[in-house]
Amino acid sequence: MRGLPPRIFDPRRRRGAVKERLYLFDTTLRDGQQTQGVDFSTGEKRKIAGLLDALGVDYIEGGWPGANPTDSDFFEDAPKTRATMTAFGMTKRAGRSAENDDVLAAVLNAGTPSVCLVGKTHDFHVERALGITLEENRENIRASVAHVKAQGREAHLDAEHFFDGWKANRVYALSCLMAALEGGADWVVLCDTNGGTLPAEIGRIVGEVIAAGVPGGKLGIHCHNDTETAVAGSLAAVEAGARQIQGTLNGLGERCGNANLTTLIPTLLLKEPYASRYETGVSVEALKGLRRASRTLDELLNRVPMKQAPYVGASAFAHKAGLHASAILKDPTTYEHIDPALVGNERVVPMSNQAGQSNLRHRLEEVGIEVDRGDARLGQLLDLVKTREAQGYAYDSAQASFELLAREELGLMTHHFFDVERYRVISERRRNAKGELVIVSEAVVTVALAGGGQTTSFYQNENPTEQEDAGPVNALSVALSKDLGPYQELIDDWRLVDFKVRITNGGTEAVTRVIIDSEDGQGRRWSTVGVSANIVDASFDALVDAIRWKLLRDGATG
Amino acid sequence: MRGLPPRIFDPRRRRGAVKERLYLFDTTLRDGQQTQGVDFSTGEKRKIAGLLDALGVDYIEGGWPGANPTDSDFFEDAPKTRATMTAFGMTKRAGRSAENDDVLAAVLNAGTPSVCLVGKTHDFHVERALGITLEENRENIRASVAHVKAQGREAHLDAEHFFDGWKANRVYALSCLMAALEGGADWVVLCDTNGGTLPAEIGRIVGEVIAAGVPGGKLGIHCHNDTETAVAGSLAAVEAGARQIQGTLNGLGERCGNANLTTLIPTLLLKEPYASRYETGVSVEALKGLRRASRTLDELLNRVPMKQAPYVGASAFAHKAGLHASAILKDPTTYEHIDPALVGNERVVPMSNQAGQSNLRHRLEEVGIEVDRGDARLGQLLDLVKTREAQGYAYDSAQASFELLAREELGLMTHHFFDVERYRVISERRRNAKGELVIVSEAVVTVALAGGGQTTSFYQNENPTEQEDAGPVNALSVALSKDLGPYQELIDDWRLVDFKVRITNGGTEAVTRVIIDSEDGQGRRWSTVGVSANIVDASFDALVDAIRWKLLRDGATG
Repeated sequence: MRGLPPRIFDPRRRRGAVKERLYLFDTTLRDGQQTQGVDFSTGEKRKIAGLLDALGVDYIEGGWPGANPTDSDFFEDAPKTRATMTAFGMTKRAGRSAENDDVLAAVLNAGTPSVCLVGKTHDFHVERALGITLEENRENIRASVAHVKAQGREAHLDAEHFFDGWKANRVYALSCLMAALEGGADWVVLCDTNGGTLPAEIGRIVGEVIAAGVPGGKLGIHCHNDTETAVAGSLAAVEAGARQIQGTLNGLGERCGNANLTTLIPTLLLKEPYASRYETGVSVEALKGLRRASRTLDELLNRVPMKQAPYVGASAFAHKAGLHASAILKDPTTYEHIDPALVGNERVVPMSNQAGQSNLRHRLEEVGIEVDRGDARLGQLLDLVKTREAQGYAYDSAQASFELLAREELGLMTHHFFDVERYRVISERRRNAKGELVIVSEAVVTVALAGGGQTTSFYQNENPTEQEDAGPVNALSVALSKDLGPYQELIDDWRLVDFKVRITNGGTEAVTRVIIDSEDGQGRRWSTVGVSANIVDASFDALVDAIRWKLLRDGATG
Repeated sequence: MRGLPPRIFDPRRRRGAVKERLYLFDTTLRDGQQTQGVDFSTGEKRKIAGLLDALGVDYIEGGWPGANPTDSDFFEDAPKTRATMTAFGMTKRAGRSAENDDVLAAVLNAGTPSVCLVGKTHDFHVERALGITLEENRENIRASVAHVKAQGREAHLDAEHFFDGWKANRVYALSCLMAALEGGADWVVLCDTNGGTLPAEIGRIVGEVIAAGVPGGKLGIHCHNDTETAVAGSLAAVEAGARQIQGTLNGLGERCGNANLTTLIPTLLLKEPYASRYETGVSVEALKGLRRASRTLDELLNRVPMKQAPYVGASAFAHKAGLHASAILKDPTTYEHIDPALVGNERVVPMSNQAGQSNLRHRLEEVGIEVDRGDARLGQLLDLVKTREAQGYAYDSAQASFELLAREELGLMTHHFFDVERYRVISERRRNAKGELVIVSEAVVTVALAGGGQTTSFYQNENPTEQEDAGPVNALSVALSKDLGPYQELIDDWRLVDFKVRITNGGTEAVTRVIIDSEDGQGRRWSTVGVSANIVDASFDALVDAIRWKLLRDGATG
């Protein structure tokens, strides 16, 4: 037993100690563009540069001027940023001077204050992929960097395949870095291009490179996530002495992505030993915008945000386990490694078949229902929720349906609004008078109003175009919300915005779960769930819940 | 310069050296169930246990018997596995004996050969969350483990919040582990419950625990991904001496997920220094099923597979960057850290039409179609497949539909069998004569036979019971396969076995993709796909493909 762990006595942690500066180099607009399915427009690039600048990264690598029209356009009118705008390119080719290399010229012509050139450092690649001598390649690096510096720019060398190169021929790999420094490079960045190097090895090699004479203050790290360790590899490099970190927002990038700055930034700012030792250009205030920046990028690219994303994901602070949820209610630090508000995120305590009573009480409080601890109705409601979840309902994804169920069970649903007497929906494929194939859906719904009386509504979508939703659920939804008598006014601004289907048991005993997302004119969004052996029937139940919830929220009576 | 890196001379790498055994403990069915939006059915749990067992993990933690109906059902008839089936629970509560604790009794009554109990090791949690004395908690651990061992079971202690506990009060945290070992525990597993501990710290603390007297061979690690370092943290623990790794398939789990076994397994088997030092229960052959296991789990849970997932993702070996793609064609090792075939994955070079065509030829060969390299029809078919995949079709999951499309486009579909003239399907909810609510679906389908003549078939399911499929797709399927004239005999043994729905674009422009799995009397299984703005129409197209493919395979003519 050696008493308290050493980090408690780390001298750098003392109040007022000078922190070392780490530099964040964002390559979302360059390496992030290599993500399968991602193709930025110039406008999107400008918006993303704005997000990055607001966050406070030090360098924004905007793309490769000359390599494609989008990147060239972007640099033609590059946004003004506090961050240092950087153009990417490659070292000059052999057999011509740096001044006469047109590819390099296009990069310099972008006029950015900073330039990052990729150069090879692995002997195998020089000989195999470039087909030039080792000496020629080294001279290409030196001369290209010197040319960039001669134009008064900041120069970064992206040392491609550095770790594999080091393992194969460390003398040659090191000599390439030295050539860049001789040319005046401000930074040499060790790239794990194939993403196969594990964190322990990255840390060891970075340490060896520094011991061989490359100053840590000029050393950067560029990791890929092919072994799911890009964040850990970057941290290992920092611990070994590197001071620039390259990465992307949301971990975009070639293959499995680059080191994820959305994770690295809060780790460096909030977690020990980093928080006490280092500082970055990201302020505590800007950090609160992290979740929003991540979400905005997903929206720009029309990607579904990853719920499980560290720090910023919708599930990152969701406590589903019953034991966890009950402790969280006593003290959030029991199951949270940071306060979610620091990164602009929030705690979620969803309902599920794992939940205990304290989870349930918390969940009820969120929808404005107070029930005393120990109230016998809690146990009954919990049993009901568990039974229904075993049948296929999923209340953690459908909070509005949960609220309706709870109010009903607790006797708090004073108004019933309406009952559905019957519905009927038809989908048909046939030829129209012109002989064209058409798909038609129609629905009729009959409703008994709580205040007395019935309404019957009909909807048919005839001659659907490709843009129009020709499905039975849409037809039912329109018919149901067409004439609800005295409630009609309140639901006129209700809109079905998404619809998710899941078969919860394979084969013939299939039960279908439908989750519907709704929206209204006040910008509220809510989700409801329906379950049935019939997909249409499951959808209909979710639709009815959606309307009931809105009537409840808008204070309808009857 | 110190010559070659040390690992080349690692004595453990010599031929014939004895490798140390690492044990893989899978908790997909327990901690994985804490994933937001995941609610396994008992049937799904059985299927997942089968996947895990085929892969070769050592332990399968099936759930918490007694905590919810699904887990209790699962253990009532637990599948027979090669892996050691393990029940999860918690240590006994204070104030009663282990023998008289009903929660613990429910866990033991599941009758598994192995039991994993969670116990607290962080003084703060014992006092704050449990409200008992430190000594009471320690005795709860010892007595519970001893009780499990007295029943002849293998015993694991999940040491909750161990790393935070160690940092706060290492004497107490260690004494809890020692209490478990005193009770006879086979394994004590250090859990980073809040997921906040970074890899370097995990490695250091595991080393300190071993130095304090806990044998590494009894030490496990359980990491969460809240800082995106769960894989790296697990590796750091192994390097420090831990020999059991807990994790989940596809990194499912509470909040940001657990350590991802889908990444850890290939890293341990294929990457140095692990490959030379350690062995697991996963064989090189089983590893080739990794991608499929990952994909099957996603399909069971109706989750969209993560393209960027290391090793198994669709983008994991996709080379989009122009420089990379051209080098890859010269030599795949230039930009790949492992051979994708080792994990059952494949290389994708999206920018290269050349690679696209050889990929396509390979797929055609799989369904028995030979096309010469350079045949102009390959390019046309490739364009068609790309266009339809952009519309929402997914031919990777629907090989039978791919084959039909290819044969049609290549002019190899000599028989057309039948055309659908029209269909109509109705779903209705109404009250029957007794006033009971019933759900009825009916369908009518008119088909023109290739040999001449028409058939019209009708099906209605009246008074459906809960066991019967009351949905519109089932009604259409029965009507379509009721009278296909001369083909009827061939399709009498056709059965619809599964049905999966995905909305491929959210909101009003939603397109629905339906994938249908079929089976016949000869035990063949095949999958077909349909896409439409109307879910019924998409299903119908997939049904028609399913029947056509069977007629083709059974050699029908006409």
